[in-house]
Amino acid sequence: MKADDSILVVGAGFVGLATAAFLATKDHQVTVVEKNPLIIESLNNGRLHFREPALAVKLKSAVTKNRLTVVPPSKERYQNTSMVIVAIDSADRKTWKMKLAAFERMAEWIGSEKRRQPAIVVLKSTNILGFSRLFRALLDKAPHGRSVQLVVNPEFLREGTAYEDTARPWRVVVGADEPKARQRMVRFYRQMYPKSMPIVTTDCESAELIKLGANLYLSHRLAFIHEMAEYANDRGLDIDAIQQGISLDPRVGGEYFEPGLGFGGSCLPKDCYLINSREAGNTFNFLTADTALEINERVLSHLVATLQNRIGKLKGKKIAILGAAFKPECDDTRGSQAVKLALMLRRRGAAVSIFDPYLKHAERIVEGNLPLSPDVDQTLSGAHALIIGTAHKKFAGLRPSKAAELVKRQCVADRFRLLNRSNWESKGFEFV
Amino acid sequence: MKADDSILVVGAGFVGLATAAFLATKDHQVTVVEKNPLIIESLNNGRLHFREPALAVKLKSAVTKNRLTVVPPSKERYQNTSMVIVAIDSADRKTWKMKLAAFERMAEWIGSEKRRQPAIVVLKSTNILGFSRLFRALLDKAPHGRSVQLVVNPEFLREGTAYEDTARPWRVVVGADEPKARQRMVRFYRQMYPKSMPIVTTDCESAELIKLGANLYLSHRLAFIHEMAEYANDRGLDIDAIQQGISLDPRVGGEYFEPGLGFGGSCLPKDCYLINSREAGNTFNFLTADTALEINERVLSHLVATLQNRIGKLKGKKIAILGAAFKPECDDTRGSQAVKLALMLRRRGAAVSIFDPYLKHAERIVEGNLPLSPDVDQTLSGAHALIIGTAHKKFAGLRPSKAAELVKRQCVADRFRLLNRSNWESKGFEFV
Repeated sequence: MKADDSILVVGAGFVGLATAAFLATKDHQVTVVEKNPLIIESLNNGRLHFREPALAVKLKSAVTKNRLTVVPPSKERYQNTSMVIVAIDSADRKTWKMKLAAFERMAEWIGSEKRRQPAIVVLKSTNILGFSRLFRALLDKAPHGRSVQLVVNPEFLREGTAYEDTARPWRVVVGADEPKARQRMVRFYRQMYPKSMPIVTTDCESAELIKLGANLYLSHRLAFIHEMAEYANDRGLDIDAIQQGISLDPRVGGEYFEPGLGFGGSCLPKDCYLINSREAGNTFNFLTADTALEINERVLSHLVATLQNRIGKLKGKKIAILGAAFKPECDDTRGSQAVKLALMLRRRGAAVSIFDPYLKHAERIVEGNLPLSPDVDQTLSGAHALIIGTAHKKFAGLRPSKAAELVKRQCVADRFRLLNRSNWESKGFEFV
Repeated sequence: MKADDSILVVGAGFVGLATAAFLATKDHQVTVVEKNPLIIESLNNGRLHFREPALAVKLKSAVTKNRLTVVPPSKERYQNTSMVIVAIDSADRKTWKMKLAAFERMAEWIGSEKRRQPAIVVLKSTNILGFSRLFRALLDKAPHGRSVQLVVNPEFLREGTAYEDTARPWRVVVGADEPKARQRMVRFYRQMYPKSMPIVTTDCESAELIKLGANLYLSHRLAFIHEMAEYANDRGLDIDAIQQGISLDPRVGGEYFEPGLGFGGSCLPKDCYLINSREAGNTFNFLTADTALEINERVLSHLVATLQNRIGKLKGKKIAILGAAFKPECDDTRGSQAVKLALMLRRRGAAVSIFDPYLKHAERIVEGNLPLSPDVDQTLSGAHALIIGTAHKKFAGLRPSKAAELVKRQCVADRFRLLNRSNWESKGFEFV
């Protein structure tokens, strides 16, 4: 792969753009494929369309230096590159089915032409187990598809630090069934990363399992601490001590071990579903995935039940939810537990009012078409209960005396333990 | 607590003796209570009755210096001490019911007399959630029981390093509902441990949950990697890469992440049962515990099914199992998955032959009354399959050419990946 040979990155989401911007800093010419014309225009003007501070800077710089261009999909683009990095949202968010049509077209385009150097397709999207086998079959159907190399190279970035995690990953996983493809990809990455960075090489399906397994492990870790916290909350136990007492064992550790409203986002719940997908013919059932999802559901249903016990029937009651994003200090509501909770409450007839400081400009939350409140005061006003939906730091500064004046009933559910409980209790609030 | 005031430690198992020996090095006079006269005699001669190298040395030294004595239980012993440390096996190993009778007698004896300084009972045994409440009620029934202080102070030692883990723990957890009891216990430990050692203070039930939760986390971590390995084994994937690729995330980490035959021993499976005990009136169900146990069972049933697929009906077939202990380089078969597997195979009519180098002197394994083979050769001779039961290092050195001569059929199940697979395969062995 020559550095002046343009790399095609398919998908202008977190993964695609972080990868593209990072490659651009390594003197690669990168073309990003995106369908939405508004996003294409914004990106080509150096403006990122979601909140990701470091990436925004790197993207602007890459665009300014003409190292990165965003274009609509076309067959020619796929033909004129020797490396296609696939970073699209590969599964439908409602059915968890793979978006096969998109991959079929890609395979057809990439395999349509004879090339001097074989093209290499790098699957960065998170796929179901065995998906690379399905994709290989799609490639093989194209006239020159058999010579196309296939690599499963999952990403492990976290939202909020998408660029940082791409530029300095904990490890890179290169899965390929052909040794040549594997070697080519390892050489490519070795030029980019310091020697100390581990590159794990393996076959395609093992790489698929590493990606899903890593997210399943994290999901389960979070499910575990939520299950502990749920018992502790019910019995009035000491969640801080429990969390600390367990995590002081270095085999457990303290990171990623905070209870709240469960785990959400665009990766963890999805991957718990994908690992048990039957689409590629697997029949093995990962019990850990089912359990993590079940605990995650229970966090919400248990909270709704607790609320009903305290304030009575939810029909007609106003419930204030502060925070809609799936994690603090971000504006992404995909897979958000706060949104799921809001929808559950609404189904029971409650009038839900949500405020999120990072979603000020949005009028409604796409998921469930939920309206957003313009400020905290309107959200709290007349509420029968207040729920912390996201642990945005700002909410920790809310004044309970002010809140007491606004709400109808002083009932709080704060699973994140974000609020200073004794302060709020001294102003008459009851924590459930 | 004066250093010359004798401390009573109830139970001469790993926890009781490690605690007693450690206290003796800190100039405490320690009396250990034990029922078995043979064990009493052996210990009073400075001989440890199980394999625990560092503890054996410390015990001998404590006995020689007259700092530690072992005695049979008697009411007087309980009356003449102000600190009783309870380290008995608190749950029945067949029914997982708490041994309440033992605790009733203890409560009666401790609470039978008025004292100047209140007695303090330190529960080191692993208990069900809410057990300290039951025990408190037992104490309160005794004439002077109400003044007895109660502390839940779980231990976290690992077999093989029982003494080391007691002398240098990652943390000490002190749970008490009365502040005075908590403070007294913290003072006691602060004299013994360096300042850098964290002491987590909390209420009794939170301390109970910390203990069970810590073991549940570890059980689940092991169940997770076993589930990954099971899928990988079925599909011929790259278990090393999968393990490495997932554990290179520092939030996952590599310790305690080795697949094998599942998790066993005297703590992990037990605690997965105990956390869902209904004996103290709890109705909450920890799904993570059920799942960990289910995966652990599936490791064995799946192996049996795989074996049947390869060698046919097990009835009348000889199966060789190398290793019976629950973990490498130890002689403890309590909760051993290898033993459970042997019993499953026997129930299907197989003739099971087990050898374990650390159990040479035993004639039979207590669990399931299984006979032990005197050496590897007799175990392998005429076998239709060889299963690695415990990853004792010695087995890694087995010569496949020699084994090939002995066995009837060259079929191996090595879930620990202890054997050099390519060597064994080159001598004709098939790995299942």
